Amino acid sequence: MTLFGIDLTNFIDTYLSIAIKIIILLIAYAIVSPLGKKVITKALAKTATRESISQARVKTLEKLLLNIYTYILIFVFITMLFGIFDLELGPLLATAGVLGLAIGFGAQGLVSDIVTGFFILLEKQIEVDEYVSTAGYSGIVEEIGLRTTKIRSFDGTLNFIPNRQMEGVSNHSRGTMRALVDIGISYDANIDHAMSVLQKICDEFQQDERFVEGPDVLGVQGFGSSEVVLRILGRTENMQQWAAERDIRKRIKEEFDTNGIEIPFPHQVNITKQS
Amino acid sequence: MTLFGIDLTNFIDTYLSIAIKIIILLIAYAIVSPLGKKVITKALAKTATRESISQARVKTLEKLLLNIYTYILIFVFITMLFGIFDLELGPLLATAGVLGLAIGFGAQGLVSDIVTGFFILLEKQIEVDEYVSTAGYSGIVEEIGLRTTKIRSFDGTLNFIPNRQMEGVSNHSRGTMRALVDIGISYDANIDHAMSVLQKICDEFQQDERFVEGPDVLGVQGFGSSEVVLRILGRTENMQQWAAERDIRKRIKEEFDTNGIEIPFPHQVNITKQS
Amino acid sequence: MTLFGIDLTNFIDTYLSIAIKIIILLIAYAIVSPLGKKVITKALAKTATRESISQARVKTLEKLLLNIYTYILIFVFITMLFGIFDLELGPLLATAGVLGLAIGFGAQGLVSDIVTGFFILLEKQIEVDEYVSTAGYSGIVEEIGLRTTKIRSFDGTLNFIPNRQMEGVSNHSRGTMRALVDIGISYDANIDHAMSVLQKICDEFQQDERFVEGPDVLGVQGFGSSEVVLRILGRTENMQQWAAERDIRKRIKEEFDTNGIEIPFPHQVNITKQS
Amino acid sequence: MTLFGIDLTNFIDTYLSIAIKIIILLIAYAIVSPLGKKVITKALAKTATRESISQARVKTLEKLLLNIYTYILIFVFITMLFGIFDLELGPLLATAGVLGLAIGFGAQGLVSDIVTGFFILLEKQIEVDEYVSTAGYSGIVEEIGLRTTKIRSFDGTLNFIPNRQMEGVSNHSRGTMRALVDIGISYDANIDHAMSVLQKICDEFQQDERFVEGPDVLGVQGFGSSEVVLRILGRTENMQQWAAERDIRKRIKEEFDTNGIEIPFPHQVNITKQS
Amino acid sequence: MTLFGIDLTNFIDTYLSIAIKIIILLIAYAIVSPLGKKVITKALAKTATRESISQARVKTLEKLLLNIYTYILIFVFITMLFGIFDLELGPLLATAGVLGLAIGFGAQGLVSDIVTGFFILLEKQIEVDEYVSTAGYSGIVEEIGLRTTKIRSFDGTLNFIPNRQMEGVSNHSRGTMRALVDIGISYDANIDHAMSVLQKICDEFQQDERFVEGPDVLGVQGFGSSEVVLRILGRTENMQQWAAERDIRKRIKEEFDTNGIEIPFPHQVNITKQS
Amino acid sequence: MTLFGIDLTNFIDTYLSIAIKIIILLIAYAIVSPLGKKVITKALAKTATRESISQARVKTLEKLLLNIYTYILIFVFITMLFGIFDLELGPLLATAGVLGLAIGFGAQGLVSDIVTGFFILLEKQIEVDEYVSTAGYSGIVEEIGLRTTKIRSFDGTLNFIPNRQMEGVSNHSRGTMRALVDIGISYDANIDHAMSVLQKICDEFQQDERFVEGPDVLGVQGFGSSEVVLRILGRTENMQQWAAERDIRKRIKEEFDTNGIEIPFPHQVNITKQS
Amino acid sequence: MTLFGIDLTNFIDTYLSIAIKIIILLIAYAIVSPLGKKVITKALAKTATRESISQARVKTLEKLLLNIYTYILIFVFITMLFGIFDLELGPLLATAGVLGLAIGFGAQGLVSDIVTGFFILLEKQIEVDEYVSTAGYSGIVEEIGLRTTKIRSFDGTLNFIPNRQMEGVSNHSRGTMRALVDIGISYDANIDHAMSVLQKICDEFQQDERFVEGPDVLGVQGFGSSEVVLRILGRTENMQQWAAERDIRKRIKEEFDTNGIEIPFPHQVNITKQS
Repeated sequence: MTLFGIDLTNFIDTYLSIAIKIIILLIAYAIVSPLGKKVITKALAKTATRESISQARVKTLEKLLLNIYTYILIFVFITMLFGIFDLELGPLLATAGVLGLAIGFGAQGLVSDIVTGFFILLEKQIEVDEYVSTAGYSGIVEEIGLRTTKIRSFDGTLNFIPNRQMEGVSNHSRGTMRALVDIGISYDANIDHAMSVLQKICDEFQQDERFVEGPDVLGVQGFGSSEVVLRILGRTENMQQWAAERDIRKRIKEEFDTNGIEIPFPHQVNITKQS
Repeated sequence: MTLFGIDLTNFIDTYLSIAIKIIILLIAYAIVSPLGKKVITKALAKTATRESISQARVKTLEKLLLNIYTYILIFVFITMLFGIFDLELGPLLATAGVLGLAIGFGAQGLVSDIVTGFFILLEKQIEVDEYVSTAGYSGIVEEIGLRTTKIRSFDGTLNFIPNRQMEGVSNHSRGTMRALVDIGISYDANIDHAMSVLQKICDEFQQDERFVEGPDVLGVQGFGSSEVVLRILGRTENMQQWAAERDIRKRIKEEFDTNGIEIPFPHQVNITKQS
Repeated sequence: MTLFGIDLTNFIDTYLSIAIKIIILLIAYAIVSPLGKKVITKALAKTATRESISQARVKTLEKLLLNIYTYILIFVFITMLFGIFDLELGPLLATAGVLGLAIGFGAQGLVSDIVTGFFILLEKQIEVDEYVSTAGYSGIVEEIGLRTTKIRSFDGTLNFIPNRQMEGVSNHSRGTMRALVDIGISYDANIDHAMSVLQKICDEFQQDERFVEGPDVLGVQGFGSSEVVLRILGRTENMQQWAAERDIRKRIKEEFDTNGIEIPFPHQVNITKQS
Repeated sequence: MTLFGIDLTNFIDTYLSIAIKIIILLIAYAIVSPLGKKVITKALAKTATRESISQARVKTLEKLLLNIYTYILIFVFITMLFGIFDLELGPLLATAGVLGLAIGFGAQGLVSDIVTGFFILLEKQIEVDEYVSTAGYSGIVEEIGLRTTKIRSFDGTLNFIPNRQMEGVSNHSRGTMRALVDIGISYDANIDHAMSVLQKICDEFQQDERFVEGPDVLGVQGFGSSEVVLRILGRTENMQQWAAERDIRKRIKEEFDTNGIEIPFPHQVNITKQS
Repeated sequence: MTLFGIDLTNFIDTYLSIAIKIIILLIAYAIVSPLGKKVITKALAKTATRESISQARVKTLEKLLLNIYTYILIFVFITMLFGIFDLELGPLLATAGVLGLAIGFGAQGLVSDIVTGFFILLEKQIEVDEYVSTAGYSGIVEEIGLRTTKIRSFDGTLNFIPNRQMEGVSNHSRGTMRALVDIGISYDANIDHAMSVLQKICDEFQQDERFVEGPDVLGVQGFGSSEVVLRILGRTENMQQWAAERDIRKRIKEEFDTNGIEIPFPHQVNITKQS
Repeated sequence: MTLFGIDLTNFIDTYLSIAIKIIILLIAYAIVSPLGKKVITKALAKTATRESISQARVKTLEKLLLNIYTYILIFVFITMLFGIFDLELGPLLATAGVLGLAIGFGAQGLVSDIVTGFFILLEKQIEVDEYVSTAGYSGIVEEIGLRTTKIRSFDGTLNFIPNRQMEGVSNHSRGTMRALVDIGISYDANIDHAMSVLQKICDEFQQDERFVEGPDVLGVQGFGSSEVVLRILGRTENMQQWAAERDIRKRIKEEFDTNGIEIPFPHQVNITKQS
Repeated sequence: MTLFGIDLTNFIDTYLSIAIKIIILLIAYAIVSPLGKKVITKALAKTATRESISQARVKTLEKLLLNIYTYILIFVFITMLFGIFDLELGPLLATAGVLGLAIGFGAQGLVSDIVTGFFILLEKQIEVDEYVSTAGYSGIVEEIGLRTTKIRSFDGTLNFIPNRQMEGVSNHSRGTMRALVDIGISYDANIDHAMSVLQKICDEFQQDERFVEGPDVLGVQGFGSSEVVLRILGRTENMQQWAAERDIRKRIKEEFDTNGIEIPFPHQVNITKQS
């Protein structure tokens, strides 16, 4: 059949084929869309159960993943629709390719941020209100976002750190902390005497409920240029280590004064020669 | 039908097909263009409401996004138009690909700048007139652009920082700041006495309205080579910390003079030996 | 129609099609070429007006952009012409692709230089005769090129800096500058007395027309090992800060001599012990 | 055969061809899937036997590899299925390509983590409870994951280190450790005497079961500005080196006091000149 | 026409088409080759005139550019010839692509060297016999090549520097140089007296033909721990600055001796305390 | 021939063509596989002979190369088989491409490790039991793997170093080593006398079989702030240098004591001034 | 003609076409192979003559280039042969592409090594037995390979340096070397007298055949904290500079002792204050 020189049969044939393709596509979308969502939800729930992640955290992750999933699906659906209508998609995609390259390079930081942020959340590397050090910043975590984490330094500064910068996180709020005091005594002093005095102080602090373990005198840590260095080591409840160290230091000074043990100043031997 | 050996039917057929394609394309453009704009506007408005971003900032972002959107759409439209006329677009795009590569590498910094700038605006990491440190520069923010941020150093220098350099921003204008004074006293001095004198000064400053919290004496921070170091810590209103510290230092010096507590010079023990 | 076994109709058909394509291409070129130039000129003019860029600078930018535009257009035109003649352009372009890759990597620095240079010009980050610090170089700008910027160091050296190295520019010629003098006084001295003497000097300099703001005595900046550090701060006309600081220093020395306030040498407490 | 202008024969032909292709695909899947799993399991078992890897570790690796294998297979299967239905997969894949590029750049860190983690497990570079130094962190390994390794520093901090950061691992728990003590004696002292005293101490410690080898006196390690440095060297059981060194130091100090050998303070020759 | 089952017409048709294509190609080559050479020569000549580049330098650049141009043209010509003969060029080029990738990565340094070298020549950043600092090397330029630049250090070492390392060039031979002498005087000395003595020396040197500007006394540059620092500043003929500085220093020492102005040794205040 | 509307002739034709292709493929495989293996074995054997590589090492390399070769061949074979069955390999490969990109980026470290490892083995840069420094690690080589090299530090730590980190290897076990002793004498001492005493000691050690060359006195190496530095230089058997240096130092101290030559302490000239 | 439903004519036609293609390919190979070799040999010979490269070096380069050329040619030939047999080369090459990517990234170091090595040889940057510094290593060149260069440090260590690490080479064996001696004299000393004494020593050494130029006294190089620094500068035969400097130093010490010129110790002014 021809109309004004156009082959109608071919036209109908083509459009029927297009219609069938669209229907298949719609069915595929109707199946894939909820299926994928279920898979994501279940996989996350399973992971959450297995790794005991808090309900709030799971919500955040689920919302994120469903969003990403939906955007990709819609994008693919539209692209394929265009393809069916035979609308010269090649150019569109080639264009997208060139743009994609430019953007891919420019935005790779963004993707890195999200990937890293996702794993920081999933692996519970840091929690809000924990004291952490990372990427040269140190302080209390205020907010963990997918792109940026906010850490409040002890001096009050609020630091915004892109997640990809957090290559290695030191979390100082996960367990007991070390209290360590190095104290120098004179080369003239009796080491045994000084150590027994220090151990007496340690025995006192072992009653202190801040201490989980020790403190104890380790021994002669080193020979300084003017002093013999002794070391005291213990473990305290988290975040108690600085106060504990300060208290030990105060006690040592008092006890050394009482026992006549000197904390020596720098020494120098002077040999006088006439010019 | 043939004319000078040319099949006219085919010609008409082809041009009809082209006409239909163009019409479809125009319709698609007419639909997609306003739709996309609406989506952008609404998404931004929604985000703005949810994250309480100032109206001015939303305007800036909206304008930017609509611009980018329009440029891409026009580019795609033209590309597809060429495609319909069958004008050997392959070469054009391949050319674009080679150029795109060269430019993609060269201009990735530009894209990075814009992506980072976008998030600095959206996440409100810095505001004009805030005191921030980033990328090795420190000072008051004068202007936040999409490509470059201007920061005025305290010495008067105006720094132009490409946004991609701002990997991690320390914002010093978001909350109370720490005032910290370390003061050394002689090993001969009575620590309890010195601490009570310091605490008395702290009590005075607690009345000072600049202080939000403290100041208080923490205790023995460390044993220096010639002095016992005591630490005072408090929190002040933002940007008041330096003046507060200066005032505390002045008061300590005066009070120590009154109470005969010495801030010690470096000590050295000299042992004289004849050569 | 066949001649020596060749289908002439097909031949004519093909060449007619080629001719039509060439005509369309020429028309497209004739339309796109002036159109694009106008768009560039207008966009630049608009930007220049909005951001008040000097006429000379606009000329430079316009010339650059028109050049780039023309080169790209000609390249595309030739490529498409080849494509119409069906001259196996695939190989040509694949070749170009391989070369393009090698060159893309090698020349990305060049593109980066131009992109950065373009924005340095457009954003007016630096002007000739300004004193700037960037990329580890410091001095007076002699020339801003699209690829290279020339900066004359104070010691007379002429530095050629590829623009892409200028990641962050500190411009020291955009506003009043800070004059800051730290001065140490003896721990034995009366702080109030010293501060009143310094303030008297500051009052003198406040009459100095070089000073825009201050100078004033801030207070006790810190406790040095042998001195109490006082700080004087003011703001001067641009480039006057060094001379102003030198003059303040000279006045302080004179006034301190008059008032018997000592700038202390390093102190040390010696404790003599017999070996 | 035609129906409403559609060629039915062609339709049946097409669908039969599709059916046959699907069947072949299913058979291929049914063969390849278990085959691949067996290959992985056997290859791993073989490797495990050859390199004597613990059963638990093999389980972890096997689970990981089977997971990766299954995901890839399903992805390929679905892609080919789509391909058979002729559903314009080009666009889908081109889309995937653009996304893949963006993700490829962003997620390369993730892949690097897994690759490195895999080899750390396989090569047994570190085990839980070992003391290691890597990527600037140092401490006891708490957990080795495929993406992240947890190391507990001695101060109690828990460090999360992405495996790709672990470029070079120093494992301090794989063998005997060196105990090294450097001791300075006076330039006036008799070196032979001092060395014999030190050797006597070493002889005592050679009975100490912590020592695997030595300790012994090596000789004159260097001339310090005020002392002649002697070196003692031995090898101890793992993790015993610090306690052993501390004990040796204490013994040296006691023995030197007994023998009247002096550990010298810094010396200086003073030449007095009248100004 | 068929011969042994081969369609001769098709054969002839094909070969005729090939012949025509080859002829077109040859004509294109014959046109493009000299045209491109002329364009290069003229563009260079124009640039050379505009930027007043020496004739020798233009020769070098022209030779280089014509070489590159010829190699590319021949490569393209051969590739297209192969394409006309339909010799499965796809594989050849795909191969080239894979190799190209490997080489592209490996040889990008080479391309960078040449690109940078080209601009160093064109922009006249350095000339033979100039004294420059770049890439951590410092010395007299001996040769500027397209890939490597040779710089002779003052200690006699000959440094080969790949041009791409020269990111930023400091040229010390382009103008007058600064002569700067800092001199410390005693805190007890009269600043005005010292400055008048120094100015007298400066007045002498202003007669010295090596000096283009100054020297002059600037004033009190800073307060050292034991001395007040005064600064003298002038500008000399290129490369004369070191000798000039040496002569000024010698004169200052002599004049200070004559006038009894002391260049102070480090000072220390000793407070004696009995142990 | 048609059956249910299917063209049987076409079917048979297709399958016959497939069968022939498979046969050709199998024959190609049967030829290429052993051929390639032989080439590898022979090339390696030839290289081994020419560069005298130990038999064990050749075995390791051969095994590695044959493994890689077999894996690639099987992969290619399967891919081509799929291609013959026309099973829409495009998608499969495109998938592989996307994955390949992600993996290529992630696993490039692995490939670098193997490439570097291969050359470290082939070029015999290090051998087991040699003392080497590389990548910031230093110690005795315990094992050279294709991916990782194990180096045992002198303190007992076992370091796992990915081969790609070994950019530059310092091998301290390939020849005689330098023994160098710098010794400071007083400015008051007679240099000639001191040098003759030192040369006498050197003469003694020249008899020592550990020394391959020297030792000898070089002369006045420098003027220290308090001493004239003399240098002794010799070459010893590998790994004997430290013991040799220690013995020389001991001898110098003894001989200097005997000859009354002083190794000076730091000197300082004190000028006393009344405050 | 059909046989079992197969179109024989087509078969013959195809195979004839294949045969012709193979013959053309073989002829092309037979022409290109020796041609390329000649081109390489001649180009190298020409370069060698023009840049006067030693015959041995040319041999090495020629062998290398011919090897590379042959491998590439064979690879291309085989690929095109496969292409003629229509053996689904797409998959093969796509596979190669994916592998190539992975390898391209991994092996880019290798290519860089060879490219850099090639230019180090061609440009004669270093020769065996020269003393060079590069990539943080310093010593005598033992062997220059295409991938690795061996440098023997003065302490006997043999360093293996991948050529790509050699970004900038300092060759210390290409010309006369500087001998430079800085000597401090007392602030009390007469500069003119000291300089005349030094010049007298310089005059002696000007007779020394090791010296090519100078030595001479330059003048007052700087004011140290305790000494006036004078500088002596000369140029010696290569590698003679250290011995020459040592001899000059010895002579200065002797001559200064004779003339009563003191090399001053560090000075300090002590101001005594009672505590």
